[in-house]
Amino acid sequence: MVVPRLIERKRDGGALSGDEWRELIAHYATGAVPDYQMAAMAMAVLFRGLTDEELAALTGAMLDSGERLPRSATGGRRIDKHSTGGVGDKTSLILAPLLAACGVAVPMMSGRGLGHTGGTLDKLESIPGFTTRMPLSEAVRQLDAIGVVMFGQTEEIVPADRRLYALRDVTGTVESIPLITASIMSKKLAEQLDGLVLDVKVGSGAFLPNIADARTLARTMVGVGERAGCRTVAILTAMDRPLGRTAGNAIEVVESIAAMRGEAEGDLMEVTLALGAEMLLLAGGATGRGEAVQILKSAIRSGAALERFREVIRWQGGDPEVVDHPERLPRAPEIREVRVGRSGRMPPLSPRVLGEMIVAMGGGRRMAADAVDPAVGLEILPRAGQSVAAGDVLAIVHARTPASADDAELTLRRALDHAWQEDAEPLPLLLERITHDHAAPYGDPAWEH
Amino acid sequence: MVVPRLIERKRDGGALSGDEWRELIAHYATGAVPDYQMAAMAMAVLFRGLTDEELAALTGAMLDSGERLPRSATGGRRIDKHSTGGVGDKTSLILAPLLAACGVAVPMMSGRGLGHTGGTLDKLESIPGFTTRMPLSEAVRQLDAIGVVMFGQTEEIVPADRRLYALRDVTGTVESIPLITASIMSKKLAEQLDGLVLDVKVGSGAFLPNIADARTLARTMVGVGERAGCRTVAILTAMDRPLGRTAGNAIEVVESIAAMRGEAEGDLMEVTLALGAEMLLLAGGATGRGEAVQILKSAIRSGAALERFREVIRWQGGDPEVVDHPERLPRAPEIREVRVGRSGRMPPLSPRVLGEMIVAMGGGRRMAADAVDPAVGLEILPRAGQSVAAGDVLAIVHARTPASADDAELTLRRALDHAWQEDAEPLPLLLERITHDHAAPYGDPAWEH
Repeated sequence: MVVPRLIERKRDGGALSGDEWRELIAHYATGAVPDYQMAAMAMAVLFRGLTDEELAALTGAMLDSGERLPRSATGGRRIDKHSTGGVGDKTSLILAPLLAACGVAVPMMSGRGLGHTGGTLDKLESIPGFTTRMPLSEAVRQLDAIGVVMFGQTEEIVPADRRLYALRDVTGTVESIPLITASIMSKKLAEQLDGLVLDVKVGSGAFLPNIADARTLARTMVGVGERAGCRTVAILTAMDRPLGRTAGNAIEVVESIAAMRGEAEGDLMEVTLALGAEMLLLAGGATGRGEAVQILKSAIRSGAALERFREVIRWQGGDPEVVDHPERLPRAPEIREVRVGRSGRMPPLSPRVLGEMIVAMGGGRRMAADAVDPAVGLEILPRAGQSVAAGDVLAIVHARTPASADDAELTLRRALDHAWQEDAEPLPLLLERITHDHAAPYGDPAWEH
Repeated sequence: MVVPRLIERKRDGGALSGDEWRELIAHYATGAVPDYQMAAMAMAVLFRGLTDEELAALTGAMLDSGERLPRSATGGRRIDKHSTGGVGDKTSLILAPLLAACGVAVPMMSGRGLGHTGGTLDKLESIPGFTTRMPLSEAVRQLDAIGVVMFGQTEEIVPADRRLYALRDVTGTVESIPLITASIMSKKLAEQLDGLVLDVKVGSGAFLPNIADARTLARTMVGVGERAGCRTVAILTAMDRPLGRTAGNAIEVVESIAAMRGEAEGDLMEVTLALGAEMLLLAGGATGRGEAVQILKSAIRSGAALERFREVIRWQGGDPEVVDHPERLPRAPEIREVRVGRSGRMPPLSPRVLGEMIVAMGGGRRMAADAVDPAVGLEILPRAGQSVAAGDVLAIVHARTPASADDAELTLRRALDHAWQEDAEPLPLLLERITHDHAAPYGDPAWEH
């Protein structure tokens, strides 16, 4: 293998063999192939793409650079869910215990927030004592015991991706659909899943805002998953406004607990139940979508989901009392109501602006090494499309300092003014459903049960 | 300056400002911008190109990363010649003393051979004692004293290019016309020239074989030179066969000395006089091409060119006796005549095959760190287009060992058989002449005097 010749071939529109990808990634993981060659290759891939065969080989090679989550001796089918990232998206926190309560094994390996999007690990760690760091042996032990574990990527999982992702981040090579796919799918396949549900966000706050790009990413990820023997379904969902009524860390845990109590409704529950139904169907736990939703709802109603969440917290060193006493979660000292200045129909507020605002408040990260303030964030009361009157509460800001609350208030007012001027129609919440042999608007009778 | 944003902008087809290029290259030269970011940028440039403004800024920034050859207090106009590289191309060895003998100051900073192409420094260093390493202060002292110096790029000259070139070589980013241009022109502009003649090779042995690519490179380099205040003319010349009758190191010095004695003719002298005439015209040493050629020829006839070459050798520590006693040059122990197997018209022999053959014999480099055997090489007797009869001597191989001579003989026979099968028409030796406001076939009456 002469690396410059491989780079040149990809640059000129050719394809590498599976063996060449495997050798390249294996040598990159050990450091024998230097970052500068991989950076040039990543840029060539960004321009030229990968064939299906190349993408499967690259994903497999990255997977093989590390360990896999051991297979369980017991338990139901192993299903996970992955989101491409958004603002206010706390569906993972709800779905993991909820599906476990329905007999599905959920090995939820998640990431941290970066840029304007939040991260499941940061949200969970706002629960006092909660740890997401554990060796794979411990993760599988917990998975076998209670059917769910919510943990961070360990050093042993896909080390080639950790190195490549850090490199892409500083070399302008993040926005490549095959590279994104290999990064996500190698980590998910390391969980040795029976099935995977992908929540691919669409809209201004999404990683790929354009629906065509999001659809391509979804199809590409589904293709790689199915090719690797993991049943994979993608749902395209709206991220032209935040999901649910909170965005932050502890504040999203509060909303998640409410959802598990059956006290949430609207967009958050719609997306949660749509994704959860796909997970349950992949696990063979229901024969149709309607039945699946009923099973999920009854696991909420019975308290089984919430009880499972308590167990997760207990197993992972956290304070399970937060489930009944959310006031035990970190709370910001400065609570500020922001009121609407005029009457009208609530437009979609930019998730990117709100997410960046939370980063500025300390609740997110500009760089991977940044610390996160668990207490700050915001509640947004009216949902996109609702009528609001001048004087209604638009949002409640949870800030560390009065100055930070001032800044947040100003940002919110501007975001609302801007959204009103734009006067955009909110996207349908659930846009499309994509499987290996089918892509259709969500709810299409051709696949709806 | 946030480097990933600059890479992304170039990747997406945008342009960087002059200040951005200057800052990027300045930080790259110090190591503050790492190789992996520059590799990604180089690949993005390869796909997206550079605007004229960007190319001028990049070239200037690279130039500014190091020192320039100090301006002389005395002497004529400073003119240099650069070739994109070929096999058997010893015109630099002849032109530098020849033009100096005509009153032109020639600060010839050259490179070493790499791959199938030879290098002026390697050829000169086959003269016992000859050194091409000297500080810029010494180079300018010699230039002021005898009007010519033939030296290697020092550490102080364009350090950013040395780093970038080494990086491009291992990241599949060599074949970018703007990056090639910035690399060549930053070094030539560091000589603080009044004029520059570019010999851009065309044909299978050229760096860019295709005439359209060579023309683009020529136009791009001429544009950068003129923009920087250096009068620049490019001639496109044939490299579908070796130039002259020798290829190697010492053996090319022998042919160069013969040329300076007026004992060479044919293709080598045609190219040498065409390039030399352009140099003399740029220096203001003649009013027309015909006059320029006459001046050059009389400097050969009078012995002035050869005497100037003796002075160069003396100044640079070499044995000036080689001029009259070429047998003092290193000579290979194994001399082998290779004869033609059948009669016909001599086809153009692949310079790439012959150049690689010389590398295999030890006379060239696969990698920059390789040592070069000065004695080995070959003479090719019939020129492309001449009639040959079975039994005529095709070539004389100068090899280190009998086994090496065997290999070379086999390679030559195959190359000749292959060329005969191909039956290609040789390219016109002088193809086009390109200035900042004109491009025309060489000899076009519109510019010919």
